[in-house]
Amino acid sequence: MQQENEVCVLRLGHRPGRDNRMTTHVGLTARALGADRVVISGDASQSAETIADITDRFGGPFEVEVTDSHRKLLREFDGVVVHLTMYGLPVQDVEAEVRADLEERPVLVVVGAEKVSFDVYEAADYNVGVTNQPHSEVAGLAVFLDRLFEGRELDREWVGASHEVVPKATGKQVEPVGEEE
Amino acid sequence: MQQENEVCVLRLGHRPGRDNRMTTHVGLTARALGADRVVISGDASQSAETIADITDRFGGPFEVEVTDSHRKLLREFDGVVVHLTMYGLPVQDVEAEVRADLEERPVLVVVGAEKVSFDVYEAADYNVGVTNQPHSEVAGLAVFLDRLFEGRELDREWVGASHEVVPKATGKQVEPVGEEE
Repeated sequence: MQQENEVCVLRLGHRPGRDNRMTTHVGLTARALGADRVVISGDASQSAETIADITDRFGGPFEVEVTDSHRKLLREFDGVVVHLTMYGLPVQDVEAEVRADLEERPVLVVVGAEKVSFDVYEAADYNVGVTNQPHSEVAGLAVFLDRLFEGRELDREWVGASHEVVPKATGKQVEPVGEEE
Repeated sequence: MQQENEVCVLRLGHRPGRDNRMTTHVGLTARALGADRVVISGDASQSAETIADITDRFGGPFEVEVTDSHRKLLREFDGVVVHLTMYGLPVQDVEAEVRADLEERPVLVVVGAEKVSFDVYEAADYNVGVTNQPHSEVAGLAVFLDRLFEGRELDREWVGASHEVVPKATGKQVEPVGEEE
């Protein structure tokens, strides 16, 4: 977003077909709520394409990548790794620490599908729970990013959009961007 | 949750099969992040069952209902209706007002699937965007609830759980609840 260091989201455990929508929602949530990049582990070309299309239309910068070797990214990421899991430490207790880390280094936020292997728990600098209740990796990611950025992501500017939504009390208004009068 | 007035989530546009997981995630997010009840419009018995099972296991109070007439609920709800939509007014601009409303009256939070008919926009007291970007109704609901409750939902108590997660820096720990030593 605007800070110096990157926030990247890693989506694990994507199963083609079955997880397409959830993975698309993870990627779009990462984009909308201030991450700079999403990396999807698995055969997720369809989700990746949807996310790239939205970025073309509504702006960036935002990158989407697909990988078949998330372990390499986890091992070599030059920054802090935060794994979101219902088994982790309460987000309200660790968010300030992660925020301080982000001042110094990039942050990789890892979200899984149903099951995440134990090496991910061990690779993470923080295992963080947005509640210790079972809910949704999309919801967890959203709350985590909103807290990490303390709401600044809601006011960010978008670059290279062809269209933008004009907020309205009632109804829908979408306008083309960048056309001179 | 703990406040006097109910927060209810209404899930619109559920399509059986196709939307099962998204609808389940909406319901579980509503529960985990402090709503008192979810009402699902459409043939969503499978999602409803999953949500009820989680409530049995991890606690409540939380209610799940299925309806085939969401218009009646929208029309007759005795409180404030908030419709989450990317076309709405910025959440950061209206959240304080909705929070003040909740002191006085129940709040119904409406989240759609892909398309929401115009009468919902008109029935809403607030059309609210968690960003004006396309992302996920699950993410929008999560951020909205976390802001509505100002994080208090993260510290709530659960009643009637058979199991609870013990937060851990690494690993998974789930314990039975309510057994005397």
